[in-house]
Amino acid sequence: MTTLIRGATLVDADASLRGDLLIENGRIAATGPNLEAPTGARIVDAGGLLLMPGGIDPHTHMELPFMGTVASDDFYSGTAAGLAGGTTSIIDFVIPNPQQSLMAAFKEWRGWAEKAAADYAFHVAITWWSDAVHREMGELATEHGVSSFKHFMAYKNAIMCDDEVLVNSFTRCLELGALPTVHAENGELVYRLQKQLVARGITGPEGHPMSRPPAVEGEAANRAIRIAEVLGAPIYVVHVSAKQALEAITRARNEGQRVFGEVLAGHLVIDDSVYRDPDFTRAAAHVMSPPFRPKEHQRALWEGLQAGHLHTTATDHCCFCAPQKAAGKDDFTKIPNGCGGIEDRMSILWHEGVNSGRLTPNEFVRVTSANAAQIFNLYPKKGSLRVGADADLVLWDPAGSRTISVKTHHQNVDFNVFEGRTVQGVVTHTFTRGLLAYERGDLRATRGHGQYLSRPTHAAYFDALKKRQ
Amino acid sequence: MTTLIRGATLVDADASLRGDLLIENGRIAATGPNLEAPTGARIVDAGGLLLMPGGIDPHTHMELPFMGTVASDDFYSGTAAGLAGGTTSIIDFVIPNPQQSLMAAFKEWRGWAEKAAADYAFHVAITWWSDAVHREMGELATEHGVSSFKHFMAYKNAIMCDDEVLVNSFTRCLELGALPTVHAENGELVYRLQKQLVARGITGPEGHPMSRPPAVEGEAANRAIRIAEVLGAPIYVVHVSAKQALEAITRARNEGQRVFGEVLAGHLVIDDSVYRDPDFTRAAAHVMSPPFRPKEHQRALWEGLQAGHLHTTATDHCCFCAPQKAAGKDDFTKIPNGCGGIEDRMSILWHEGVNSGRLTPNEFVRVTSANAAQIFNLYPKKGSLRVGADADLVLWDPAGSRTISVKTHHQNVDFNVFEGRTVQGVVTHTFTRGLLAYERGDLRATRGHGQYLSRPTHAAYFDALKKRQ
Amino acid sequence: MTTLIRGATLVDADASLRGDLLIENGRIAATGPNLEAPTGARIVDAGGLLLMPGGIDPHTHMELPFMGTVASDDFYSGTAAGLAGGTTSIIDFVIPNPQQSLMAAFKEWRGWAEKAAADYAFHVAITWWSDAVHREMGELATEHGVSSFKHFMAYKNAIMCDDEVLVNSFTRCLELGALPTVHAENGELVYRLQKQLVARGITGPEGHPMSRPPAVEGEAANRAIRIAEVLGAPIYVVHVSAKQALEAITRARNEGQRVFGEVLAGHLVIDDSVYRDPDFTRAAAHVMSPPFRPKEHQRALWEGLQAGHLHTTATDHCCFCAPQKAAGKDDFTKIPNGCGGIEDRMSILWHEGVNSGRLTPNEFVRVTSANAAQIFNLYPKKGSLRVGADADLVLWDPAGSRTISVKTHHQNVDFNVFEGRTVQGVVTHTFTRGLLAYERGDLRATRGHGQYLSRPTHAAYFDALKKRQ
Amino acid sequence: MTTLIRGATLVDADASLRGDLLIENGRIAATGPNLEAPTGARIVDAGGLLLMPGGIDPHTHMELPFMGTVASDDFYSGTAAGLAGGTTSIIDFVIPNPQQSLMAAFKEWRGWAEKAAADYAFHVAITWWSDAVHREMGELATEHGVSSFKHFMAYKNAIMCDDEVLVNSFTRCLELGALPTVHAENGELVYRLQKQLVARGITGPEGHPMSRPPAVEGEAANRAIRIAEVLGAPIYVVHVSAKQALEAITRARNEGQRVFGEVLAGHLVIDDSVYRDPDFTRAAAHVMSPPFRPKEHQRALWEGLQAGHLHTTATDHCCFCAPQKAAGKDDFTKIPNGCGGIEDRMSILWHEGVNSGRLTPNEFVRVTSANAAQIFNLYPKKGSLRVGADADLVLWDPAGSRTISVKTHHQNVDFNVFEGRTVQGVVTHTFTRGLLAYERGDLRATRGHGQYLSRPTHAAYFDALKKRQ
Ligand SMILES: [Zn+2]
Ligand SMILES: [Zn+2]
Ligand SMILES: [Zn+2]
Ligand SMILES: [Zn+2]
Ligand SMILES: [Zn+2]
Ligand SMILES: [Zn+2]
Ligand SMILES: [Zn+2]
Ligand SMILES: [Zn+2]
Repeated sequence: MTTLIRGATLVDADASLRGDLLIENGRIAATGPNLEAPTGARIVDAGGLLLMPGGIDPHTHMELPFMGTVASDDFYSGTAAGLAGGTTSIIDFVIPNPQQSLMAAFKEWRGWAEKAAADYAFHVAITWWSDAVHREMGELATEHGVSSFKHFMAYKNAIMCDDEVLVNSFTRCLELGALPTVHAENGELVYRLQKQLVARGITGPEGHPMSRPPAVEGEAANRAIRIAEVLGAPIYVVHVSAKQALEAITRARNEGQRVFGEVLAGHLVIDDSVYRDPDFTRAAAHVMSPPFRPKEHQRALWEGLQAGHLHTTATDHCCFCAPQKAAGKDDFTKIPNGCGGIEDRMSILWHEGVNSGRLTPNEFVRVTSANAAQIFNLYPKKGSLRVGADADLVLWDPAGSRTISVKTHHQNVDFNVFEGRTVQGVVTHTFTRGLLAYERGDLRATRGHGQYLSRPTHAAYFDALKKRQ
Repeated sequence: MTTLIRGATLVDADASLRGDLLIENGRIAATGPNLEAPTGARIVDAGGLLLMPGGIDPHTHMELPFMGTVASDDFYSGTAAGLAGGTTSIIDFVIPNPQQSLMAAFKEWRGWAEKAAADYAFHVAITWWSDAVHREMGELATEHGVSSFKHFMAYKNAIMCDDEVLVNSFTRCLELGALPTVHAENGELVYRLQKQLVARGITGPEGHPMSRPPAVEGEAANRAIRIAEVLGAPIYVVHVSAKQALEAITRARNEGQRVFGEVLAGHLVIDDSVYRDPDFTRAAAHVMSPPFRPKEHQRALWEGLQAGHLHTTATDHCCFCAPQKAAGKDDFTKIPNGCGGIEDRMSILWHEGVNSGRLTPNEFVRVTSANAAQIFNLYPKKGSLRVGADADLVLWDPAGSRTISVKTHHQNVDFNVFEGRTVQGVVTHTFTRGLLAYERGDLRATRGHGQYLSRPTHAAYFDALKKRQ
Repeated sequence: MTTLIRGATLVDADASLRGDLLIENGRIAATGPNLEAPTGARIVDAGGLLLMPGGIDPHTHMELPFMGTVASDDFYSGTAAGLAGGTTSIIDFVIPNPQQSLMAAFKEWRGWAEKAAADYAFHVAITWWSDAVHREMGELATEHGVSSFKHFMAYKNAIMCDDEVLVNSFTRCLELGALPTVHAENGELVYRLQKQLVARGITGPEGHPMSRPPAVEGEAANRAIRIAEVLGAPIYVVHVSAKQALEAITRARNEGQRVFGEVLAGHLVIDDSVYRDPDFTRAAAHVMSPPFRPKEHQRALWEGLQAGHLHTTATDHCCFCAPQKAAGKDDFTKIPNGCGGIEDRMSILWHEGVNSGRLTPNEFVRVTSANAAQIFNLYPKKGSLRVGADADLVLWDPAGSRTISVKTHHQNVDFNVFEGRTVQGVVTHTFTRGLLAYERGDLRATRGHGQYLSRPTHAAYFDALKKRQ
Repeated sequence: MTTLIRGATLVDADASLRGDLLIENGRIAATGPNLEAPTGARIVDAGGLLLMPGGIDPHTHMELPFMGTVASDDFYSGTAAGLAGGTTSIIDFVIPNPQQSLMAAFKEWRGWAEKAAADYAFHVAITWWSDAVHREMGELATEHGVSSFKHFMAYKNAIMCDDEVLVNSFTRCLELGALPTVHAENGELVYRLQKQLVARGITGPEGHPMSRPPAVEGEAANRAIRIAEVLGAPIYVVHVSAKQALEAITRARNEGQRVFGEVLAGHLVIDDSVYRDPDFTRAAAHVMSPPFRPKEHQRALWEGLQAGHLHTTATDHCCFCAPQKAAGKDDFTKIPNGCGGIEDRMSILWHEGVNSGRLTPNEFVRVTSANAAQIFNLYPKKGSLRVGADADLVLWDPAGSRTISVKTHHQNVDFNVFEGRTVQGVVTHTFTRGLLAYERGDLRATRGHGQYLSRPTHAAYFDALKKRQ
């Protein structure tokens, strides 16, 4: 369907200009002042609104099988909730079991994802090492559009990578032109602290952050970054929550290294007092890793985002309902790790980032969309308002406001970590490849509309990395 | 004249794409694959070439009256040399004498600049303080398109600002939505060291860097930045040459402060051994402030550029010929300060930046053009390949090479600080507002073609700064 | 009188050993296990107690004429209160008016100090510059035992030094082998902020910290340190209260520069919430400069003390009673700046430093006594338990506790900033040159017992500095 | 034998004073001005000389079985060479094989050491983990005076510890009041780089530093420090050679963590150009790990020493002669790692440290002796001039000079890494427990004179650490 959006302020990563935007065949066909409406075109009056590239959430876990249960938001409900919040693409994770074929796992996830209402791509996790893993990384990268691989440095005795796997896999990534990413927590220390805490009788959710202190994250982030440095590989650190991890990124970037950092909306605004909530259900609902941190870390994370040391904002969206969380009633180490957020990320970032004077609207576009597209090689198809790009668009009302609540959200989970926050700056319309999927409270997500995003290897930064070898 | 550039790689700050570009009426009329050539259009075959926004040099001093003489490149010869090197805009400096009217000085410089062959804008220096200065800053900003003001923290007993002037002027800049910039050297220390050195009999050019050690620059940069922090103003540090100054910028940026840094092509590649040249003429030809630094500073500057703590590259182009430099034959403090460079900045940055793997081609565009345009509020008219932008363009042959020499350069000066360097990556064509001014060695600069660039106040970063007040 | 202290743990800066200590003629005559008691010696049983060098407070202002009034503790009452708290020496400040002769001011202060009950030395402030100042600095240093000079970077239009004075005076200090010290706050910014606040109607004590934010202190500290670096001089920063100032010190020290830092007991434990007390009298009682800071700064200061970047602990003891503070009832800029503390510094440091596991008892001796003695060239006469040293001693009961209160303190002021804090670790006996001046609550200070401490120039660190010139 | 040293300057860690020193029964019996000579005492005229505590080298490997051979200096020849250079104590390493009993290895080394000419202590390495290791650590600490344990983070497939062993052992050390120490290099990366280099045909000594770049050391140092932080343990990093490792130490210390750093005399003055020597024998003679580094690291190390972030100076004395080194003629990974230095450390430190103005003579005593004694709990028996301390003394002629050479040294090795350096500042006399073992070129070391130094657990810093748990 042809659509003409009229009278908006087009906010791109580099500039804001008044004008119109024409959508044809799911793509941006034209931008500029006073565009003529093609016959039959739907006209959207965007006076007073900002028109921006749809959000990209580069870190989600829809219907993830984890800790004996399965995340409650599936690819349909999760992406639909994203659309309600202005997010039009996700990058989810294929997580093979140790010893499992990467291709087999990839196919499994691809199947699950077919119901998605918005576009999606996949990172694939490396949880073990063998010649077969080496070979399948190549197959995924060159034939299946997987140009980033994930490494867990925590979860000992499960999916944790030791240094040997990290060195093998980062080397392989570099060879393929793919980006290694890490969940940075020292799993050995987490394991030791969990045992010590339980031995001391600390079994409630308050033990969760005690078992994963900031230094545990800072160490792992530094280690992954320095391994990448020595091998000449780029590196992306997911869900940076502690200033120690940010400092590791900052140090390396200040030396010219290609390091990218991701921060979650939740870590930017929620602190660790939630774990001291006497209500187990509420406290457990916040259990995710890394945990929420003391307030000083929030300030550091915002500064990192402003300084350009953190590039993307994500959610690690991975929902578990109260009955699922109850598995850890007597032992915090058994609470399924994960929180929702895909629906509220954009609003949280605008309200706390733009309204506070930390970010300009252009910078908002960078950290919610354009940077993720560039880093994960979806740009400019995604993440920009360029002519020719996919018409993944969000119309934003900077004057509108709403109060976040589990009662009104579209996420398939019984808790909202942002409950009760009133945010100014709301989505009025969301388009996914030209399809108007959300309009002022009315969610019209289409099951299966979402397409798999094949991401080529050798994103732009490899232009420089190749010259250094 | 209508021109179609065919088969280039269009390299913008955010992405590189194969395609054509159409110029009409001095502007970019279209970009994309396989554009149709309008009747009568000149066709430029750009196969194998990169098409980029023309360079912007945000720091030049054409025909500056300084230290008893006048810089040898005037607005015509200097901008023409720029065109030969791919630079299509400059921002020069109006420097009133203390007690002189700002408007009077501004008019004087505007008159001199009418002969320019490429577009130009002006920063205006604040060299004293009074109610009249306060008022004329407003007049310049709101009526004459001057949205940045310069402050010299060195040159005691001449144009140096003390803290009181800095505080007054930064406050005024913030009020106006203009950007304060500083030449950061502690003038009191320079003055003391100059006297001590001359007293000790050190009167040759080797005394120049001894009188302006890196700590002198680091202190002043930190001071200006912290004054800006306290007042809530943005700040731009010109010609960062010392790692200490870079560190001051980095510290503040890491805390989320709006600080911008500029680095000169010369400081990136030339070290302080030039001052120990036994030939006075050669040594004196390198006398500029801040001076060239020991090699370790070069590495730091490159890292700062890669990390995004330095945003723009400039030249401080300010030429003096040997007879002018001879004024300091017996006393280095009397050598006119200044070196050329406008013609070679782009090549130096490409060769040392892109070929070495430090910068991607997109990052090259940012640091030679787009960032300056954004910071000084010329964007996207300048600094981008967007449709509608001025057709200030450079075609770049990444495979071509040339050897820099005073014998072949177009700058009106008898020395080239980059003499003898062979660089790979050369300009083949330069367009200034659609006019082909340089083509493979043939410079066709047009006296008076250049236009004054009026720069609005309140660049995009003021969107955020205003919210913080 | 000969005294034998028996069965103590002798805690020196470098080690702790069980043993006895013999005092003869005001000096330490012997230390070791099982010393024999000379005939007639007083025996002090120190079982379970620690014996340490008496405290040195290197920053006090007894009976200072300031802001139109005079500090309420004079040299007798102030030093007596110090003895009650285990402090046996002070270094006070001679502060000449601009244009006043240094020698004249020095003689004035020497006269006032004759009533002191404990030993005292003087720093002399440089508040202006002339040939006479230059000459008198020499006279003070070489003939009168003044080997440190103070510089105020704040208090514009009063005693503030600009860069020119700093450069002149630091140069002179280096020449003399004397240590320059600075009160680091950018006076120009304080002046501007005070005017802005009062103009906005903020006239109560809450305006005081707003007019002197941490960045103002950080800037000045960095400036003084870098000026010292360029000149090759050592530097001592008094009352470091902001992490920004600490970071400036840390940076320089990490580069091998000779920089010393002092922190006040108050800044280590009191935060800026005191200025929001609705009771003017209470809020005003805390007005001093630099002001108390948000809590995060306290943590930084403790870390600086632990890391050895801060060397001494002081009080800036300068008491004003409520009627004096009332001068600023309608304008916070008129509240006399100053708080007490000399009596409680040692207990605060022990309780918060040693009991918390931040400092060992040996480190406690360093930061309360030995370091000050070494830096200000009183060592080992003061600051150690060496045989031959002055018998300035404190017996400390680590198990004892007391609650600090204005009701019981000996300071001549109607407020105690540490009111109500219960500290574990108390003085049982204080000796000043062998005289038992305090014993378990009984203060027997002797008016005029204190002697002037002449401090030679060229403290040990000049051994290294001289080689660098 | 009773000895009176007359007219020296007694240079201790805290002060320098003119005076005499009396030795009786191997201990310091008295110090002070004008001591009376006991009947029959030997009188040493020390006019113009400095008298200092003898050096302590906390890192040596005498007669170490390593890489298929045995280090050429044994406990006799090595300690004798130390005496010739002013070093009177060493701390060597017991290195059990994986699976070997710690006690068995300890006894083996104790036997070898009986021939030592000067006093010695032992660190014991933890190269594997089991309940037996846990138990034997306790036995060594509580019954055999071993209060420090060493961990190799490099040497994969041999003695390398993974994170699990580090966490187990550091926890045990803390429990015992013992100090964990680490050789910090990421062994996984070294292993990978060695394989890559050999595969690329780089088999000569130039490959050695390429296989162990600074980042490899920085990563490991940071990891060990952060593990210690999380567990609450103190940590000591041996042979810090790279600024990255120093920065890891500095960061932690600036946060108040108890981290100690050691630097080798060699790393302070030798750079990596030695590995590019075309003569295999010369290049191989410098092969040790970590390798010598580019010059910039030397400056950083000196700054770390000056700033107090590095505490001790050592040598890692581990000699192999040319025929031994030849084992790696065709493969640098097979060259036995190790260099000599025990004889020259003190002179190198004085010449480059004191004469250059970096260190005062008192600071020299700290970094060559007192700090090691305090950290490893030998103080004040060793490391001080206190009455009662062991008479391990060195008389130092600051005006004397000598040229270092394999031709004149006493070390049992055919190469000297400091060959040809002329140093000003030489030992004239060395006493080991009162025995005059070296006098102006005449070495009179006594086989078996050296005694084992039992070191109690819970050094002074545990006073603070215990309070933090
Ligand atoms: Zn994760
Ligand atoms: Zn995740
Ligand atoms: Zn300048
Ligand atoms: Zn300039
Ligand atoms: Zn003060
Ligand atoms: Zn004061
Ligand atoms: Zn080692
Ligand atoms: Zn070793």
